[in-house]
Amino acid sequence: MARTKHSDRAASRRPVKTDEPSLGGFREALRVGADFALSDVDTHGTPNYDGGKQDGKRDLGTAEAEQSDLLERLYAESTAGAKRAVLLVVQGMDTSGKGGVMRHVVAVNPEGIKATAFKAPTEEELAHDFLWRIRKALPMAGQLGVFDRSHYEDVLVVRVHDLVPEEEWSTRYETINAFEREVVDSGTTIVKVMLHVSSAEQKERLMERLDRPDKYYKYNPGDVDERKRWHGYMEAYQAALTKCSTDAAPWYVVPADRKWYARLAVQQLLLETLRDMDLTWPAADFDVAAEKARLAAT
Amino acid sequence: MARTKHSDRAASRRPVKTDEPSLGGFREALRVGADFALSDVDTHGTPNYDGGKQDGKRDLGTAEAEQSDLLERLYAESTAGAKRAVLLVVQGMDTSGKGGVMRHVVAVNPEGIKATAFKAPTEEELAHDFLWRIRKALPMAGQLGVFDRSHYEDVLVVRVHDLVPEEEWSTRYETINAFEREVVDSGTTIVKVMLHVSSAEQKERLMERLDRPDKYYKYNPGDVDERKRWHGYMEAYQAALTKCSTDAAPWYVVPADRKWYARLAVQQLLLETLRDMDLTWPAADFDVAAEKARLAAT
Repeated sequence: MARTKHSDRAASRRPVKTDEPSLGGFREALRVGADFALSDVDTHGTPNYDGGKQDGKRDLGTAEAEQSDLLERLYAESTAGAKRAVLLVVQGMDTSGKGGVMRHVVAVNPEGIKATAFKAPTEEELAHDFLWRIRKALPMAGQLGVFDRSHYEDVLVVRVHDLVPEEEWSTRYETINAFEREVVDSGTTIVKVMLHVSSAEQKERLMERLDRPDKYYKYNPGDVDERKRWHGYMEAYQAALTKCSTDAAPWYVVPADRKWYARLAVQQLLLETLRDMDLTWPAADFDVAAEKARLAAT
Repeated sequence: MARTKHSDRAASRRPVKTDEPSLGGFREALRVGADFALSDVDTHGTPNYDGGKQDGKRDLGTAEAEQSDLLERLYAESTAGAKRAVLLVVQGMDTSGKGGVMRHVVAVNPEGIKATAFKAPTEEELAHDFLWRIRKALPMAGQLGVFDRSHYEDVLVVRVHDLVPEEEWSTRYETINAFEREVVDSGTTIVKVMLHVSSAEQKERLMERLDRPDKYYKYNPGDVDERKRWHGYMEAYQAALTKCSTDAAPWYVVPADRKWYARLAVQQLLLETLRDMDLTWPAADFDVAAEKARLAAT
């Protein structure tokens, strides 16, 4: 709310490219490549960014106008028939900050956003292929879709807990790559982000939830049991990240022990993607002068 | 995005009632009562508010933390089994500022919001009762639902254009009242807001859309034709507002020629409603000390 404090007019007239020094290069810095190793990532690091916490918060705020402008252009072109959309997939261990990304980075015009939090599947969802519920949640043309967890849970928690036999989950990486290729070919740009916290940082964040009555509702005794499988989860993430970081839909790993950095990095990954789309305002599909005359006569 | 710039911790610890002088009384000032006449409303007015534009923008920003806190409590109690939700219905003529309310007032955690923009009904929707698509869009427990247009279109545009016979639309006021009563009884608090612009102000806003290429996409030649039915729309609004402003689900009319006031007023109407719900953090459904010990051992 009150996301853009400047007037609507100022927001719309603001050029997308400004002379202000702007950030860039987060995609190159965070992308999962062929020889990626999750265990090499410093979860406390701030890759591609020299500033501190206060700088990061300021830069997050500064970029809001551009983000808002680009998302409005994405919506606007869809009203003229364009079929493009963007899908942001956010994965990460419990407490990694997925909710904070939703609140601080994603919250814009709620009508332009299709946000879905994937929980444990329902009976109906389990009675379908694992991608059934995912397809239903894809963004429409002009929208920014956001997944809080995703189809990757079907090769993460499912693999760690043996919820289906290995013969089944082991084929899913290929299935996911083919699915994402199809989604991209249909006009939706996919940005996949893993928020990577350390086990020690997770422990602190869980302890905080137990220290504060206003955080109890976020705590589940199962969270402690899951910590015992940390190594298994990291193995499963390593496999998902490397097998499914494709040219069509690359993975980015964002160090997330510092929340301010994770939020800034996700915002910049999204912004860099939007900038590359060359989003322009659609031309009028009516005679502007004639409409002005008709309106003036009312 | 970056809606709450203070830390999560500060937001959660902030008491809902503070010593700062806070606004209040918007519901009483704006509610549609028995002898309400839409034509008496000054669309340029700022009822219940003495400040100017800069004050209004500041107060809108100041109240964000409380709004965020209350909505988190609403969600939190649902995780403990509470069934309450809130539904904000926003109606208004074209250009009245519905989109601005969405961007500046409503945008919070997108996962806590279920926003629906009701357009002209699809064939499938027309093959059902007019409330079918409305029921599907109701918020779940813990959510804030937001309707941009609503079932009231079925007694507004439908009435003005005779899309169904009078025998049919004339029964819908009762049907709507019964439906809203049912929704309220199920635990969802309804806040219905009409953003009220003058015909002259609408003309200016439409002309601006024709003056600016980045606004063309918002313009439709049909908008001018609709202006010719202004009086019919005001009659239809007058009927809907008075027939359907019930104790269970009252209507509020917000003067909307000044966008900053309309946004502030809708925010305050929502806030006053949330404050009345006595939202508290749910108690832990686990043994806090035991969990701390288990976590510490990991």
